[in-house]
Amino acid sequence: MGVLRIDGGRLWQSLMQMAEIGPGVAGGNNRLAFSPEDDAARGLFRRWCEAEGLALSADRFGNQFATRAGTEELPPLLIGSHLDTQPTGGRFDGVLGVLAGLEVMRCLNAGGVRTSRPVTLVNWTNEEGAIIRPMMGSEVFTGALPLDQARAMVDHRGRRLGDMLDALENGAGPGGPGFPVHAYLELHIEQGPILEQAGEVIGVVTAGIGFRRWLLRFSGQDAHAGPTPMEARKDAMVAAAHAVLIADRAARALPGGRGTCGRIASPNGSQVTVASQVELTLDLRHEDLAQLDALSARVLGEIEAQCRALGVGFASENTADSPPVPFDPAVIAAIEAARIRNGYPGRRMVSGAGHDTCNMARVLPAGMIFVPSANGISHNEAEYTSPEDCAAGAQVLLDSVLTLAG
Amino acid sequence: MGVLRIDGGRLWQSLMQMAEIGPGVAGGNNRLAFSPEDDAARGLFRRWCEAEGLALSADRFGNQFATRAGTEELPPLLIGSHLDTQPTGGRFDGVLGVLAGLEVMRCLNAGGVRTSRPVTLVNWTNEEGAIIRPMMGSEVFTGALPLDQARAMVDHRGRRLGDMLDALENGAGPGGPGFPVHAYLELHIEQGPILEQAGEVIGVVTAGIGFRRWLLRFSGQDAHAGPTPMEARKDAMVAAAHAVLIADRAARALPGGRGTCGRIASPNGSQVTVASQVELTLDLRHEDLAQLDALSARVLGEIEAQCRALGVGFASENTADSPPVPFDPAVIAAIEAARIRNGYPGRRMVSGAGHDTCNMARVLPAGMIFVPSANGISHNEAEYTSPEDCAAGAQVLLDSVLTLAG
Ligand SMILES: [Zn+2]
Ligand SMILES: [Zn+2]
Repeated sequence: MGVLRIDGGRLWQSLMQMAEIGPGVAGGNNRLAFSPEDDAARGLFRRWCEAEGLALSADRFGNQFATRAGTEELPPLLIGSHLDTQPTGGRFDGVLGVLAGLEVMRCLNAGGVRTSRPVTLVNWTNEEGAIIRPMMGSEVFTGALPLDQARAMVDHRGRRLGDMLDALENGAGPGGPGFPVHAYLELHIEQGPILEQAGEVIGVVTAGIGFRRWLLRFSGQDAHAGPTPMEARKDAMVAAAHAVLIADRAARALPGGRGTCGRIASPNGSQVTVASQVELTLDLRHEDLAQLDALSARVLGEIEAQCRALGVGFASENTADSPPVPFDPAVIAAIEAARIRNGYPGRRMVSGAGHDTCNMARVLPAGMIFVPSANGISHNEAEYTSPEDCAAGAQVLLDSVLTLAG
Repeated sequence: MGVLRIDGGRLWQSLMQMAEIGPGVAGGNNRLAFSPEDDAARGLFRRWCEAEGLALSADRFGNQFATRAGTEELPPLLIGSHLDTQPTGGRFDGVLGVLAGLEVMRCLNAGGVRTSRPVTLVNWTNEEGAIIRPMMGSEVFTGALPLDQARAMVDHRGRRLGDMLDALENGAGPGGPGFPVHAYLELHIEQGPILEQAGEVIGVVTAGIGFRRWLLRFSGQDAHAGPTPMEARKDAMVAAAHAVLIADRAARALPGGRGTCGRIASPNGSQVTVASQVELTLDLRHEDLAQLDALSARVLGEIEAQCRALGVGFASENTADSPPVPFDPAVIAAIEAARIRNGYPGRRMVSGAGHDTCNMARVLPAGMIFVPSANGISHNEAEYTSPEDCAAGAQVLLDSVLTLAG
């Protein structure tokens, strides 16, 4: 243990080779789940795994598994991530976790290491949710989403997911959903600026952040912008502007809080009319459930009071609700030990984005490793993580696998 | 003078008969300029004028004129407004000014009154600008917009205005644009809540408000709503929200000021992404040019400073610029005297919306009379002005005509 070293050049070469499938328009990738490009990526993944002598399988939702046998017949240690991307996605989000897992397999093979537990590498189907809701592969795996229900769902163009999977060469397999797993481990880019700004290399992720989302609707009174005195207005735009700043200020005032209004619209808005209707999305996050509850109550309460004062109607529709999910102490400890043993500067941190690990951590021991994202950019073709940081993440993954698979 | 009384019932009946042409979906009107409904309204107007023995003519932009001869060969007193409406417009905006002018003609005829000056009633073409820019008829009349240029312009569906006018039964006539006019007088609904809230009946309009419009563009950095700490964000939505409140507060702080952000959009916005692009319209108004200048400088300066502090890019594109236009003191005095003589409660006020009177007042003596709008509502099928208020406005118009036409 500790003598096996990741081949950073080989890992980088695999990342760049995968990036050739479904190239984007600006140096990144457009490899939507269920697309021909996704199929091609799945095929390359399958061939690479076969070349390492791994046992391939897929379940009926298309989750791909590649298993390296252990010395004992035990539930495997599961590692991996996803190969699908956003329409203007990067070359590292998800891909790094899958191909670093492949690099781990290659190292274990090259070093002739036998682990007691099997190690299984997974490529989850449709993590990104670009054409339908995200993280469905792990949801089906854990049973949170019944397989038949998932396959019957239709995307934004009305296509059944099951039909799309069956049409792929490397899509759905015969496997039923889920099987016993010892623990799950995922290496992923941070998708935020924290590690880079601190000059650190490894994030030991302790929890998935909790989030709540709403669609907020503000209803004022349309009126001519000229003849209507300021004091006679019921301006939905002013109410929405207050809401944006209320969410921003409340999140800033709470350590670890996040408050985002990412989308706004003024249906039938006119430049010469006081706005009668404004719609706004609100996303609040915190790693602690009680704090998330308090943040939510404070923000919605302040918005409601402000709207009352303005004489503007206010309605909120809760569109998502995901409590924080703590990761497993033993998995966290294994990652932290591997980071320290390798001398990588880093920190414990929370995952602000949703990942398959969050679904897994609700039912079994799970954990995540983060590596820096240049400028904090992701879901963008400019996404970048250096070869050195990719190798560091893969090394921590390898060492953690050796700890957890015995 | 002063013995002639408007027939309020006859005026109301004409208003209701006109409202039957191009009915809306909610009790109002959909009578777009250049449409078959506009043509029908023009035809009814022509027949009503002919029945009063008025001399009909039209210019090549379709402005309709109906003249009652005076005892002397002098430039006429011009009165009127417009018969076109917004797609979900009301029964009074514009229509009242034309049909009250017709009622004035009927009273003069019934009373056998001879004015020294001719009185000409006008129905301006395309005041509302629902399918192209507004107030074009008076712009062509004054020469601010050359006739041939106006006829060559195309609407939002690519149709030449000249072709559309020529296709109407009651469209373009042979007349060249413009002729000498003594003064112009327009009765119109207020389109705001001021008179109604004060329990007043007549607004003596002293000026057309000045306005400036901009399209504001805020450019931040898109980033994941979860992994991106609040202090690492460049949030275009937060910047736009500040802009809305800056405009609102600055306008409230300035007596007579107006500040409106009526339309907003977040192209490519996502509920889980810090917004990188937000577009917002800004409309600032004041009756005094120096105050409008100061308001504009203050609002744009504060927005720019706020964006700098947030690290968000800011660009403003000036989309309209219309200086305040003072109305004629003699016309104002005539209207004010008529209001007082009739015992109507009222006030001097500014027109916050644009009207044909504003175009006319730039080149000749002009003035306006306002009557209340129920709940300040207009450009809406719910627009309403009571029969009594319509009659009061027509009476002030009649008395002002008698003063100004001699
Ligand atoms: Zn991902
Ligand atoms: Zn009008």
